[in-house]
Amino acid sequence: MTWHRQHLLDLQSLTPEELNTVLVTAQVFKKVGERAIKKVPALRGKTVINLFVEPSTRTRISFELAALRLSADVINFTAEASSLKKGETLKDTLHNLESLNADFIILRHGASGAPHFLSRFARSHIVNAGDGAHEHPTQGLLDTFTIFERKGRIEGLNVTILGDILYSRVARSNIWALVKLGAKVTLCGPSTLVPRVFESLHPQIKVTWDLEQALRGADVVNLLRIQHERQRASAFPSIGEYASLFGLNAARMKWIRPDALIMHPGPINRGVEIESDVADGDQSVILQQVTNGLAVRMAVLFLLNGGRASELGI
Amino acid sequence: MTWHRQHLLDLQSLTPEELNTVLVTAQVFKKVGERAIKKVPALRGKTVINLFVEPSTRTRISFELAALRLSADVINFTAEASSLKKGETLKDTLHNLESLNADFIILRHGASGAPHFLSRFARSHIVNAGDGAHEHPTQGLLDTFTIFERKGRIEGLNVTILGDILYSRVARSNIWALVKLGAKVTLCGPSTLVPRVFESLHPQIKVTWDLEQALRGADVVNLLRIQHERQRASAFPSIGEYASLFGLNAARMKWIRPDALIMHPGPINRGVEIESDVADGDQSVILQQVTNGLAVRMAVLFLLNGGRASELGI
Amino acid sequence: MTWHRQHLLDLQSLTPEELNTVLVTAQVFKKVGERAIKKVPALRGKTVINLFVEPSTRTRISFELAALRLSADVINFTAEASSLKKGETLKDTLHNLESLNADFIILRHGASGAPHFLSRFARSHIVNAGDGAHEHPTQGLLDTFTIFERKGRIEGLNVTILGDILYSRVARSNIWALVKLGAKVTLCGPSTLVPRVFESLHPQIKVTWDLEQALRGADVVNLLRIQHERQRASAFPSIGEYASLFGLNAARMKWIRPDALIMHPGPINRGVEIESDVADGDQSVILQQVTNGLAVRMAVLFLLNGGRASELGI
Repeated sequence: MTWHRQHLLDLQSLTPEELNTVLVTAQVFKKVGERAIKKVPALRGKTVINLFVEPSTRTRISFELAALRLSADVINFTAEASSLKKGETLKDTLHNLESLNADFIILRHGASGAPHFLSRFARSHIVNAGDGAHEHPTQGLLDTFTIFERKGRIEGLNVTILGDILYSRVARSNIWALVKLGAKVTLCGPSTLVPRVFESLHPQIKVTWDLEQALRGADVVNLLRIQHERQRASAFPSIGEYASLFGLNAARMKWIRPDALIMHPGPINRGVEIESDVADGDQSVILQQVTNGLAVRMAVLFLLNGGRASELGI
Repeated sequence: MTWHRQHLLDLQSLTPEELNTVLVTAQVFKKVGERAIKKVPALRGKTVINLFVEPSTRTRISFELAALRLSADVINFTAEASSLKKGETLKDTLHNLESLNADFIILRHGASGAPHFLSRFARSHIVNAGDGAHEHPTQGLLDTFTIFERKGRIEGLNVTILGDILYSRVARSNIWALVKLGAKVTLCGPSTLVPRVFESLHPQIKVTWDLEQALRGADVVNLLRIQHERQRASAFPSIGEYASLFGLNAARMKWIRPDALIMHPGPINRGVEIESDVADGDQSVILQQVTNGLAVRMAVLFLLNGGRASELGI
Repeated sequence: MTWHRQHLLDLQSLTPEELNTVLVTAQVFKKVGERAIKKVPALRGKTVINLFVEPSTRTRISFELAALRLSADVINFTAEASSLKKGETLKDTLHNLESLNADFIILRHGASGAPHFLSRFARSHIVNAGDGAHEHPTQGLLDTFTIFERKGRIEGLNVTILGDILYSRVARSNIWALVKLGAKVTLCGPSTLVPRVFESLHPQIKVTWDLEQALRGADVVNLLRIQHERQRASAFPSIGEYASLFGLNAARMKWIRPDALIMHPGPINRGVEIESDVADGDQSVILQQVTNGLAVRMAVLFLLNGGRASELGI
């Protein structure tokens, strides 16, 4: 139940104990969101800066609310019209924000490794809010928390991740959290987007291009968003083809165990990777993921700040 | 003095008692804005989200300040670069925000009926901050509050609304509040923008295209903004023609009673619907409307949250 | 140690006593930024509006954090999509914001004199956050504070300001603060951007186009940002030529005293007006300037609000 890290950069480098510490702490903070007064003073007088070089409204709002509910002061800094557009380097931006006594820099960036790079110089706490196709650790944590909450464990579960694995930071962060905590992970999708080489990452990872095989026996099916605005033409013939080959619909739900969880990081493309009756069905935990995202982000900020859940008295 | 509604969607469905409850509560909150410390703890730990799918800086700021002065946490969510642009439905956006335990969704939307649609699924409080050409209830309330404050009553007053009635949500919300509280409403403007059919809404409504007739005997003249960026070419030959035929200037002020109020929802187009000497004259209450808008919005958030003015001790 | 002004519009009109009052007060607030809880209740229940008609992320963030750490409510108002774009005059915008009981308007504007113009009508406190090529008083104050902090005095120091003096509000505000407090100021840069007429402003000002002469004997060298996105073609042949003729590099550092301070208002253009080894070197105080900017802005808001540092107990 201890935490010694200055930053949260990825899940690949976390130990199972550290992952468990976040999950247990998030359970406490989830209760804060259910109170009449959704606020604790843990980060009063601390400064949190949302440095979103790549825009993302929903992730920004989740972090902003997490910080506000911890009573921190929050500043939103987007790349548009900012000094980054005037040619300032990211490192200089960091040093400027730290000169304002920023305590936390929540960094969203299009380049893989940007938060790791910054962390080499940082006095503040860097939290990776998504870096290129690399990792999105709080998403991985919230997905893992949601599974843990619903299934009571991670160890021994069969988790299928479906979609564009190749370019997905969500997939990578999920994979690391899940295998470290003892789950078996099956990756499925078009062969152009799910290369066999992923199996070399860890012995608990399996790749298949056969959807039925991926869905049968899964305890959890995590669907990735098809980012049709960013997808490479060569890897991806059309949205319609993806929907017909890999979209989760009522017919394919018959291959899925009735107690399996259906997950999606949102925002969902209804009729593309998921049909509405599945998204809104009993097995879907998509909205619980959103709720848990806030709890996990509060937990992360709290732990990085040196807090211990046992001191909270919640 | 009671309030039982979950949402504020329009004024058409409010009872006179409910309208009066808002007005009386707004009187209390107006005093908060005049204090050295303009803050009460009524909404501490609550989350207010400004969901402005259609942009509006001034309405957003008024709601944001109202929420801050009630000690709520406020998040601004504009449509640009948001998940709504990625194809997420409005209903899914609502469910996502509610999964973050949002207590209030302040919705500005270009489509008439959008807040009503959302309210069918909402656990949170939906406040309509303007929906298409339908209603802008807090604007109607602040206008009515301003008249009530200055005239001591609404019943029996003659209120003229002048301009583009056809496409104006401000006009509709004013009309409903005024007729419910017993005022007589005269609608005036170019015949293309003020169809006779408005008279069928309520027996206290009269339509005229004769400006002098509309102004003589009025206790209140409420000028609508000419939204020349949005006006249909067919309904509206030119700004200059509107100004010359319906603009309020010193000459036409002679038709207006010296104790009549001149109102405008802002921002004003000086020299178009109103001349500067009228806008800045003794009879103008345009800036009081802005002040009252904040008081009314605090009252609305407070009432929706279950508060009663008598408990405030202000 | 007294302060009686309603606004901070420029440094040209401040007395040496007033300048010193800001510097002494900023020393107190600098300590607030070094605490675990970076927050004082001095402006609780006050409303600060960042009215940035000309965008500037870094200045906005510094003011926003200053206000938050003083416990004020802060609203950001940028010109995009605002009523200013709908043709509202700046004076009407002021009156609208004051009708919301705004206590402070932080104004950034592209037109020289805009804050002075507004101050003629303002009930609130106007703070100039940069107006055209005129002044940027909090930048001048933070630069002066940084020199004072490091050198222990201003009087008798030789300060060289290098770059585009003609179009620089930073230069003007620095010049006024420095000469009033007894420093000698040397202005240097391309002759097209540093006209001799600046010497007529004050007998302590000297103009030279000889870089070596400007650097030798200086106690402080303040480099201005080359705003290549705004520079007039006629005044400025190329970035490369500027860098080769006036950029501060290791070779030219030999002309500079080893105890001289190197300053820059940021964001820096590495390789243009300053080489990286100079920017990151021992003599550079560029990041201290950022820290001091926050302290100075807290001091300014606090003093305008009628506060006295002696009452703070810090």
